[in-house]
Amino acid sequence: MKIAVYPGSFDPITFGHIDIIERAVTLFDKVIVTVSQNFEKTPWFTAAERCEMIKDSVSGLANCEVDHFKGLLVDYVSRMHGTAIIRGLRALSDFEFEFKMALMNRSLAEDITTVFMMPHARYTHVSSSLVREVAGLGGDVSMLVPDHVARMLKKKLA
Amino acid sequence: MKIAVYPGSFDPITFGHIDIIERAVTLFDKVIVTVSQNFEKTPWFTAAERCEMIKDSVSGLANCEVDHFKGLLVDYVSRMHGTAIIRGLRALSDFEFEFKMALMNRSLAEDITTVFMMPHARYTHVSSSLVREVAGLGGDVSMLVPDHVARMLKKKLA
Amino acid sequence: MKIAVYPGSFDPITFGHIDIIERAVTLFDKVIVTVSQNFEKTPWFTAAERCEMIKDSVSGLANCEVDHFKGLLVDYVSRMHGTAIIRGLRALSDFEFEFKMALMNRSLAEDITTVFMMPHARYTHVSSSLVREVAGLGGDVSMLVPDHVARMLKKKLA
Amino acid sequence: MKIAVYPGSFDPITFGHIDIIERAVTLFDKVIVTVSQNFEKTPWFTAAERCEMIKDSVSGLANCEVDHFKGLLVDYVSRMHGTAIIRGLRALSDFEFEFKMALMNRSLAEDITTVFMMPHARYTHVSSSLVREVAGLGGDVSMLVPDHVARMLKKKLA
Amino acid sequence: MKIAVYPGSFDPITFGHIDIIERAVTLFDKVIVTVSQNFEKTPWFTAAERCEMIKDSVSGLANCEVDHFKGLLVDYVSRMHGTAIIRGLRALSDFEFEFKMALMNRSLAEDITTVFMMPHARYTHVSSSLVREVAGLGGDVSMLVPDHVARMLKKKLA
Amino acid sequence: MKIAVYPGSFDPITFGHIDIIERAVTLFDKVIVTVSQNFEKTPWFTAAERCEMIKDSVSGLANCEVDHFKGLLVDYVSRMHGTAIIRGLRALSDFEFEFKMALMNRSLAEDITTVFMMPHARYTHVSSSLVREVAGLGGDVSMLVPDHVARMLKKKLA
Repeated sequence: MKIAVYPGSFDPITFGHIDIIERAVTLFDKVIVTVSQNFEKTPWFTAAERCEMIKDSVSGLANCEVDHFKGLLVDYVSRMHGTAIIRGLRALSDFEFEFKMALMNRSLAEDITTVFMMPHARYTHVSSSLVREVAGLGGDVSMLVPDHVARMLKKKLA
Repeated sequence: MKIAVYPGSFDPITFGHIDIIERAVTLFDKVIVTVSQNFEKTPWFTAAERCEMIKDSVSGLANCEVDHFKGLLVDYVSRMHGTAIIRGLRALSDFEFEFKMALMNRSLAEDITTVFMMPHARYTHVSSSLVREVAGLGGDVSMLVPDHVARMLKKKLA
Repeated sequence: MKIAVYPGSFDPITFGHIDIIERAVTLFDKVIVTVSQNFEKTPWFTAAERCEMIKDSVSGLANCEVDHFKGLLVDYVSRMHGTAIIRGLRALSDFEFEFKMALMNRSLAEDITTVFMMPHARYTHVSSSLVREVAGLGGDVSMLVPDHVARMLKKKLA
Repeated sequence: MKIAVYPGSFDPITFGHIDIIERAVTLFDKVIVTVSQNFEKTPWFTAAERCEMIKDSVSGLANCEVDHFKGLLVDYVSRMHGTAIIRGLRALSDFEFEFKMALMNRSLAEDITTVFMMPHARYTHVSSSLVREVAGLGGDVSMLVPDHVARMLKKKLA
Repeated sequence: MKIAVYPGSFDPITFGHIDIIERAVTLFDKVIVTVSQNFEKTPWFTAAERCEMIKDSVSGLANCEVDHFKGLLVDYVSRMHGTAIIRGLRALSDFEFEFKMALMNRSLAEDITTVFMMPHARYTHVSSSLVREVAGLGGDVSMLVPDHVARMLKKKLA
Repeated sequence: MKIAVYPGSFDPITFGHIDIIERAVTLFDKVIVTVSQNFEKTPWFTAAERCEMIKDSVSGLANCEVDHFKGLLVDYVSRMHGTAIIRGLRALSDFEFEFKMALMNRSLAEDITTVFMMPHARYTHVSSSLVREVAGLGGDVSMLVPDHVARMLKKKLA
């Protein structure tokens, strides 16, 4: 069984992430979407809230699991018996950072492969930080995130 | 069975390509390496020669097949019952072109997904055109291609 | 009256170009879409054919004219009493080339300003060369160009 | 009357910004330079100080107004009856961010168009953050900002 | 005597930096590796600790000195009678920032030239921030930094 | 004695190249400007003409020699006892290509180092191909190349 891990902050999950997940589940036998812990930035949503929003977004996908983790990504992927790390590439600036991380992770774990996927053109500009900025300024996020996420954003801002 | 197609000119196959193939076969049940026809550029090697060099390079990989094709890539992938197109990303300039092709192919065939993989850092600068240039100027290509390819290059230049 | 010139090869015009034109006519009093002559590449379509296809695409826009020119762009823009050159930016690789051309044109004619516009996200991957490639391989171009252009491509390939 | 809005932090205004403004006023009937509020970063100068420095820099331009705003940019532009948002592009890194914002703003307000302009080559490296850094280290900023801005920087640092 | 200055945060020094230094000493009569002070970010290591780690890394190089400085880089280089500033370029994102800084420094001191060098391909992904992140997550940094630096990281994290 | 080699097509030499050379001679004891042979493209000017134009441009620089070569660059640099290859970087697109060539040359000759220099901001957009294009369209090239080169261009076009 081929297992792929899709790590990220998902703060919050967007239509761009969901597009990646819906395609990943057609390529791998199991896809684990996992919320990573980032020491530097304080997230808007707790890890529990973020997992909840992901679960609500992928409930229709049989071979998709939701999790969260601490520590080195490659150690987590090994524990999960994963062979692939999935990363989304929307833009050039993603590329540089992702390129370095992929080389780094390969040097740490030669048997785990990073594969990159691109979301649909209509989600090129969609990112969690944009969602937070638009929501924070009182803009409409209904084209960026599912309704249940939009509601969570409103609650958080209230 | 998950089938992935890895298309390219492979004029000739390099260690960078081989690195991608060796990792792809761990992620998919079958990987078809396929030589594409490019109308604009005249290749150094015929499609038959290029297939031969690929076969010699991947002979140890059980779930890897070698083929060539004409016409639209997505039509070929459909005929082969593939769900994934594999593309290597070495550098930023690759990214732009590949990004456009991935969006294009998705608009032509929504059920086929392009996945990108990066070769090892030591192959970042290796490309078929560089191999041809170095070989053409009498340089040593032993760090860029397998021995059997180096011999083919010498023969072609003689 | 503010006049803007939108130069290009338009070989052939695509939905991406049309999107730019439809927005440009809301910003300027007159927009001249002009087919440039390129010494290096032989176009698929003659200048007359390309102008014809553009005219058919913008017939609904009152303040849009179609033309073609030879020689330096800035000389042409001066003759037309234009103050702006419009260029589309779809991707990073466009940016580099366009950046150089804008600086060059400014050094040749200080009173003419290049303004850049981005087509809709759904046209990010659409270019004339892609249209020619897909059409040449027998693919469907109905999402890339208007029907009358698709028919011209078929005729040209027949 | 065609109205364009040029938003930014202008913390402080530089010769690069002024170059953009001086060209924008030749393309549009009215240009509103507007100081945006950024929640994440604390500016060096207050919104009032920044507006004052902009006014002193554009006093010779009849069709240029200076303002500041809170909330979503597209809402502000609509209130001002603007049809264009002007953004400067100095470098590739600008491009990525600006590309996303332009797509985002278009998805929020289809009738407002972002146009990009490039400052003169001699201002390619000039940014407000560079001005602050050089000033903070005691360097000479006379080639980067007008005299009245240089004086404000000295006062702020004293 | 041609003197080159290699400034940086070196927080901490990595194999990538050391690769640059080992090549720079073959090109210039003297190379001064100098720790710069960065107002915005708090470093993990003090300037003294960073100098110590650099000294331990370059002890075998006769024409290499280690120093630290405050204020404008070009002023420091002038005081040291340097004619060149050395900067490493690993990736595209470096390029943009470095390009601006090189133009800026040239405008501040016309007689000082910035030269760029690229580390070996195997260090493309190595940066001080990556070292800190991997060390912070308990990963193995032995392929990224010398042993004495790895020990310092462990001590700092304890 | 530190010898640096500055290879290129120089078809023709521009103010951008000359700016690089004038700075390189302050960093190295001898700089050899050398015209490379490119199999793929037919140059406008013969190697002899290109050398002549370079010589006329650098006649005032005591430690600068002009030459031409065939074959692998690193072999030529070794024969000339050079330790450095100088390359100009004007833009991002240069970077990608130059990055690959630098890695390649390092893998072919570990003891030769590529150093990159940036021309003055006012020459960012200047390239030999732009000079040929502007001259070919009858534009003024006096801001791009020295007078003696402008005369050669006119003669060639006559």
